[in-house]
Amino acid sequence: MTAQPDAPQAGDAGTQQAKLVANYREVRTFSERIADPLTAEDCVIQSIPDVSPTRWHLAHTTWFFETFVLKGRDGYQPFDDRFEYLFNSYYNSVGGQFPRPERGLLSRPTVDEVFAYRRHVDGAMLSLLESGSLSGETLPVVELGLHHEQQHQELMLTDIKHVFSRNPLFPAYTEESIGEGGPGEPAQFMDFGEGVFQVGHSGSDFAFDNESPRHRVFLENYSLSTRHVTAGEYLEFINDDGYGRPELWLSLGWHTVNERQWTAPLYWQQRDGEWFHHTLSGLSKVDLNRPVCHVSYFEADAFARWAGARLPTEFEWELASSQSSMAGIFATDLIALGTAVHPTSIERSEDAGSSPSPTLSQMFGGVWEWTSSPYTAYPGYAAAEGALGEYNGKFMCNQYVLRGGSCATPKGHIRPTYRNFFPPDARWQFSGIRLAR
Amino acid sequence: MTAQPDAPQAGDAGTQQAKLVANYREVRTFSERIADPLTAEDCVIQSIPDVSPTRWHLAHTTWFFETFVLKGRDGYQPFDDRFEYLFNSYYNSVGGQFPRPERGLLSRPTVDEVFAYRRHVDGAMLSLLESGSLSGETLPVVELGLHHEQQHQELMLTDIKHVFSRNPLFPAYTEESIGEGGPGEPAQFMDFGEGVFQVGHSGSDFAFDNESPRHRVFLENYSLSTRHVTAGEYLEFINDDGYGRPELWLSLGWHTVNERQWTAPLYWQQRDGEWFHHTLSGLSKVDLNRPVCHVSYFEADAFARWAGARLPTEFEWELASSQSSMAGIFATDLIALGTAVHPTSIERSEDAGSSPSPTLSQMFGGVWEWTSSPYTAYPGYAAAEGALGEYNGKFMCNQYVLRGGSCATPKGHIRPTYRNFFPPDARWQFSGIRLAR
Amino acid sequence: MTAQPDAPQAGDAGTQQAKLVANYREVRTFSERIADPLTAEDCVIQSIPDVSPTRWHLAHTTWFFETFVLKGRDGYQPFDDRFEYLFNSYYNSVGGQFPRPERGLLSRPTVDEVFAYRRHVDGAMLSLLESGSLSGETLPVVELGLHHEQQHQELMLTDIKHVFSRNPLFPAYTEESIGEGGPGEPAQFMDFGEGVFQVGHSGSDFAFDNESPRHRVFLENYSLSTRHVTAGEYLEFINDDGYGRPELWLSLGWHTVNERQWTAPLYWQQRDGEWFHHTLSGLSKVDLNRPVCHVSYFEADAFARWAGARLPTEFEWELASSQSSMAGIFATDLIALGTAVHPTSIERSEDAGSSPSPTLSQMFGGVWEWTSSPYTAYPGYAAAEGALGEYNGKFMCNQYVLRGGSCATPKGHIRPTYRNFFPPDARWQFSGIRLAR
Amino acid sequence: MTAQPDAPQAGDAGTQQAKLVANYREVRTFSERIADPLTAEDCVIQSIPDVSPTRWHLAHTTWFFETFVLKGRDGYQPFDDRFEYLFNSYYNSVGGQFPRPERGLLSRPTVDEVFAYRRHVDGAMLSLLESGSLSGETLPVVELGLHHEQQHQELMLTDIKHVFSRNPLFPAYTEESIGEGGPGEPAQFMDFGEGVFQVGHSGSDFAFDNESPRHRVFLENYSLSTRHVTAGEYLEFINDDGYGRPELWLSLGWHTVNERQWTAPLYWQQRDGEWFHHTLSGLSKVDLNRPVCHVSYFEADAFARWAGARLPTEFEWELASSQSSMAGIFATDLIALGTAVHPTSIERSEDAGSSPSPTLSQMFGGVWEWTSSPYTAYPGYAAAEGALGEYNGKFMCNQYVLRGGSCATPKGHIRPTYRNFFPPDARWQFSGIRLAR
Repeated sequence: MTAQPDAPQAGDAGTQQAKLVANYREVRTFSERIADPLTAEDCVIQSIPDVSPTRWHLAHTTWFFETFVLKGRDGYQPFDDRFEYLFNSYYNSVGGQFPRPERGLLSRPTVDEVFAYRRHVDGAMLSLLESGSLSGETLPVVELGLHHEQQHQELMLTDIKHVFSRNPLFPAYTEESIGEGGPGEPAQFMDFGEGVFQVGHSGSDFAFDNESPRHRVFLENYSLSTRHVTAGEYLEFINDDGYGRPELWLSLGWHTVNERQWTAPLYWQQRDGEWFHHTLSGLSKVDLNRPVCHVSYFEADAFARWAGARLPTEFEWELASSQSSMAGIFATDLIALGTAVHPTSIERSEDAGSSPSPTLSQMFGGVWEWTSSPYTAYPGYAAAEGALGEYNGKFMCNQYVLRGGSCATPKGHIRPTYRNFFPPDARWQFSGIRLAR
Repeated sequence: MTAQPDAPQAGDAGTQQAKLVANYREVRTFSERIADPLTAEDCVIQSIPDVSPTRWHLAHTTWFFETFVLKGRDGYQPFDDRFEYLFNSYYNSVGGQFPRPERGLLSRPTVDEVFAYRRHVDGAMLSLLESGSLSGETLPVVELGLHHEQQHQELMLTDIKHVFSRNPLFPAYTEESIGEGGPGEPAQFMDFGEGVFQVGHSGSDFAFDNESPRHRVFLENYSLSTRHVTAGEYLEFINDDGYGRPELWLSLGWHTVNERQWTAPLYWQQRDGEWFHHTLSGLSKVDLNRPVCHVSYFEADAFARWAGARLPTEFEWELASSQSSMAGIFATDLIALGTAVHPTSIERSEDAGSSPSPTLSQMFGGVWEWTSSPYTAYPGYAAAEGALGEYNGKFMCNQYVLRGGSCATPKGHIRPTYRNFFPPDARWQFSGIRLAR
Repeated sequence: MTAQPDAPQAGDAGTQQAKLVANYREVRTFSERIADPLTAEDCVIQSIPDVSPTRWHLAHTTWFFETFVLKGRDGYQPFDDRFEYLFNSYYNSVGGQFPRPERGLLSRPTVDEVFAYRRHVDGAMLSLLESGSLSGETLPVVELGLHHEQQHQELMLTDIKHVFSRNPLFPAYTEESIGEGGPGEPAQFMDFGEGVFQVGHSGSDFAFDNESPRHRVFLENYSLSTRHVTAGEYLEFINDDGYGRPELWLSLGWHTVNERQWTAPLYWQQRDGEWFHHTLSGLSKVDLNRPVCHVSYFEADAFARWAGARLPTEFEWELASSQSSMAGIFATDLIALGTAVHPTSIERSEDAGSSPSPTLSQMFGGVWEWTSSPYTAYPGYAAAEGALGEYNGKFMCNQYVLRGGSCATPKGHIRPTYRNFFPPDARWQFSGIRLAR
Repeated sequence: MTAQPDAPQAGDAGTQQAKLVANYREVRTFSERIADPLTAEDCVIQSIPDVSPTRWHLAHTTWFFETFVLKGRDGYQPFDDRFEYLFNSYYNSVGGQFPRPERGLLSRPTVDEVFAYRRHVDGAMLSLLESGSLSGETLPVVELGLHHEQQHQELMLTDIKHVFSRNPLFPAYTEESIGEGGPGEPAQFMDFGEGVFQVGHSGSDFAFDNESPRHRVFLENYSLSTRHVTAGEYLEFINDDGYGRPELWLSLGWHTVNERQWTAPLYWQQRDGEWFHHTLSGLSKVDLNRPVCHVSYFEADAFARWAGARLPTEFEWELASSQSSMAGIFATDLIALGTAVHPTSIERSEDAGSSPSPTLSQMFGGVWEWTSSPYTAYPGYAAAEGALGEYNGKFMCNQYVLRGGSCATPKGHIRPTYRNFFPPDARWQFSGIRLAR
């Protein structure tokens, strides 16, 4: 998180505290609402090492507060000492970790017991927060914990989608699907001029440490597509033998395509000549007007090359995004509505077509956008001391930055400087493509 | 199963039918009693490819009756057509199979739905059995199905034990443990003379096809230990650097020991200099007077070499067993008593010590006994036609025969000619050692 | 080797010694003749872990004499102390071993240096042998060493064949190929009666320890095909979708076929609809009248099932072989003639067709014959003390016995009780099929 | 390579041609001199997939000229059509490639035949070059081919070093070693100011396409160490448990360290408490004053964190290097002198110590310097059309840039804008560390 030496003096401390309590309740409750449609059996499966069981997400986010806020505090009794090891994800400073690829081998504690764990920790946390005795040092840790839990809320959705995809019965997480996308208007490119620009987080709002320090970069002239690449456009790439032409691919991408025999985005399958995909509401026909989703960096890069374009850098994206509304499709609304989570294109308003100057749309929500930027430290970046310094910095290797959030991102969790990151072969996130030139 | 050209004409057909119905109810109910102590979460875990989730055992044993008895029969409506694929284990003649190593990726159908599946099939089966309309051809298939289910009952116990062993909380399947074993009396060797002998199944009772045809073998003189090797004796082997001396091991065994870093039987672990093992009632101290259990063929063979003895052949065992009582510790009693399933030595009666001539004990129940016999076809063996011919014959390669049953074997399921078989590196079964010379 | 309490008292000791010296010279020279057609580059390649470089064979067979006969003897100076480790194959009692799968990573000592090593050891050995001072204890070790070297001579041929097969240039080891096989006469089955029989080695000639003790077995009636299965017959199996029908295969075999995508014997490939195979004289058309070769146990077993027959047990084979001539095609002649080593059918003489009673042919030489017998210890078998006890016994697990020798076996190396053994998926040996019923 | 629209009109065309011919001869000869000390056996080994046999390097560099310059030209007869496939490295546009990990399975063509191949192609190339008929289009391809061969000259040295390291005899490539390094003077940091700077290749000299386009970057203030990290400094890191403290490592690095059990740089080993390393002149004691070498990016990064510093970006390095001499230790001189190739510190002149203002030394030659920059495309980068476009661009993923050349780099091959690149776990190159702040 960002160091905030001069934290909010302004405003009523009581209001601040009430807001934090409300925020805590809201975030914690939302995690449980995501688990609502699931059976106990669903909550234990780990379909690939990248995926964690729902049980685990519910417990680990609780572990975060217990470990970094409650433990060692007067009068706090840990729920079960063995959880320190069992639900540690990757914090070496805290101690050993139950091996990640074996999370799906555990049936105990059961889902009910994990909920009891949440009750236990929530009770202690709310007492603490309401007592007003929280120090200025701990406050940012609570705030970090809530953003951390929101990240896991997104993972709960992406992970259960993957879990269900491995079952030939294609279970649905939710029954209703959101309405049809409109016909795709032609993609336009919007121009941006060269210069030295400021990038990275500023101000006193929360941000992760990897968004800082704010610093200067030099950008050449560039232009950015006004919208996401659609499934229909991606299908043209497939039909043009995109997966069979090595000249379109990075060497490592070509190797991956062949080794894993990729011929389409994750979750796509052809039945009697038609394309279907597994979604959170089960198997359904691919809607060609919606953004293509669940593609890897390799596929995004190959598509861009095929289209005579390229992927934007993360800074090109960040600067352009300041000219865009933050409206979009987010997990929060969808869960509330009980509808299926699928990136769609509701921003494409009818009048957009007649607009003479291009406008960026879909910058936030919908699908994450792969950038061409490897995930590296900003100049002067320093990880925090202690365990929380392991949050971001140690992952800065062989990953690429994604920007803008997706339909599985909780509302209010995203911002223009937010840097998501995944290895170039990852496909189980809601990741799509925006072209640049 | 055995061809039975001269099947039971004698006796009252009505009684036969009533007996079959009672047997069907009893066996089917017992499977569910085994699942009783488990949560829904427990029932989905697959800790290694060898292990299947409880959910799967409950469904697959049901699938057996649906597929081989009910399907295609007038008026029978399959519960769910997709189960034909989902719960087929290895019957290529029936069709494709959901991949075995992925059984633990499925959360649906849920445990409740699997129980509904059982209700559905049990209803149809009982109607059929009670109708008396079962043909002479189908009857042996029902009987095979019940013995098949008993085999899976044993696997349910061995598999859940393995599942729980991977959880650092070491959950207990059952709370109580059976009483202490008595002090081990000295092992004696009992002699048997050379000659041509008949081995294999005879008579009209049920037996698997791999126990036939009955045939002649020539045996040299041999002698057999009167009891199992105990944990205490095995510990001497460990302490004598048994796991570190290549000259005691088969080449493949030595390779396995090093690759998997074996230093003790499966489930054993040292804590502060003392040996504990994971059992069905959780982690407990190793009782040195009880039979050693969960050793591979490699370990049994190395132990025998260290002890200046060898493992018996399956025919040496079979002939000797005719001189032994079939009393022993079986799953049936243990489940009924609600006690922990662990091989013990209750047969070692006090007066045995004073007996001048040795008596074989523990031949049945307790722990399976590795023999030195590779699992091969008896002369003249022919697998049944069709899918049921896949039951046994196709596994006759790179496996070793075990005899006698274990504490996880349902009572009445074992007999002197019964041939169990596992690869030489398998350890998750209740497998132990009896020495021969 | 066989314990020989009643070793040769008869005869002139001087003659014995002269014979041994001659034998030593002959065997050692023959290894080098096998290497003659090879370049230095050829001699270092290890195409799979099973295969060893020619360099290694030439050095290891020398190491055997140095280690077990010369080392520690007065006045003997080891050629290079580091070779003890470098050229030890699997003798744990001697010490550590350079890892087998890495034999192909070594370029030093060079081939020339290995030949110098041979000169050094041969000098010392011949001095010793000619001195007449060899003790009665060491003599059998020298004899064992020569039989050991003959086994490696066979491996040199099988291994270089495999090495060349991986090179798209398909180099030829030798240029000429042996003459055409005659047209295949129909296979006949010859009958043998039941009874208790003696099997295993007897007499004072050399035999490996695994051929002893001679002992009694009971055999049921059986019959044996008079000749090998031909490539043409095997092609019928292929064309009848033999590789695509699971019901013909052992479960492990079916798994192997699919995993390795086998569709024909090793070295076979189809070009424009015709079958070719890689041979020691390069790529050539498959001759349908010759014995099929380079099949695994799995393929031999599946073929037999398809043909409505089975494989013989090793004892059925051994007893029948006493009624057969030991004439056949062996490596010795072929190397002498400079011709290609390929199993052929020169024994099928013209008049055989008119014979009213069947005669066994091709029992020796040509191709090794898979038996259905797992490789196990004979009753009463005890491995020798010390390192030489590691020669055979520790491999008695998950292997199958082959009988009769092949065209790559040195002449005089084979006998009716000889037990060769390989895992059921091995195909790079000259292994073929004879059917039984 | 760089597009050169305004290529050398100036100067005498005859002189240009003579220079090219001389250059061709010199480069081609130097490859063969590198192979001089090797036996035929040495030239076929591939110790890991990253390493190629010397045979292959000699053939592939020849293939480059045959494929991209000679093939299809009037009167040119390919040496062997099958080489097109056999010696293609990764050019999909040319066609299929013999699998890289299997290069060590080939013994044919032999080393002598590869030399004949070189003679054949050199003859045709020299005729062509001397004819003066080379078009302006082909000239840059020849130039690229020579720089390509120089890259492989470096690989020949790094690869044979690795090959020899796997042999317990630790063969020496060359006998003499270069003189002792002087005592290490204290490392100083030299400061550089912020601003917008030009980076990338300019001018008409040869450069690879990945060094272009020249473009602007914004750099913050930074400072750079005046010299390489020494083996002695690195040993302090080891002795301070550097390999055992997860907080010093990138997550992927920590995983790698544990999986591969790294505890020191590649080739280091401890004997009786002292550190030795395998070098091109065999096993020798580590000289603590020389630059540490054969470390991965992970190790360089962890060392820097331990030292309270960081690695420079590639642009920080590039700008600083303009203030440095290009003197250094290169392969060319070393081979000429017949001495061992080992990075040393001969530039550390005595008077350097007294200098009040820091001077950068060792920027070129010695050891490659890991930068913190992932290998990406410069803004506006476009790969060449056709096969040669596969030279660099497709590798821009999951690799890091190294700068400055090493003692295995041919003299004259390096320049300030040169970008070498390897994955972060690569250690078999001559790669070392320079710190930045």
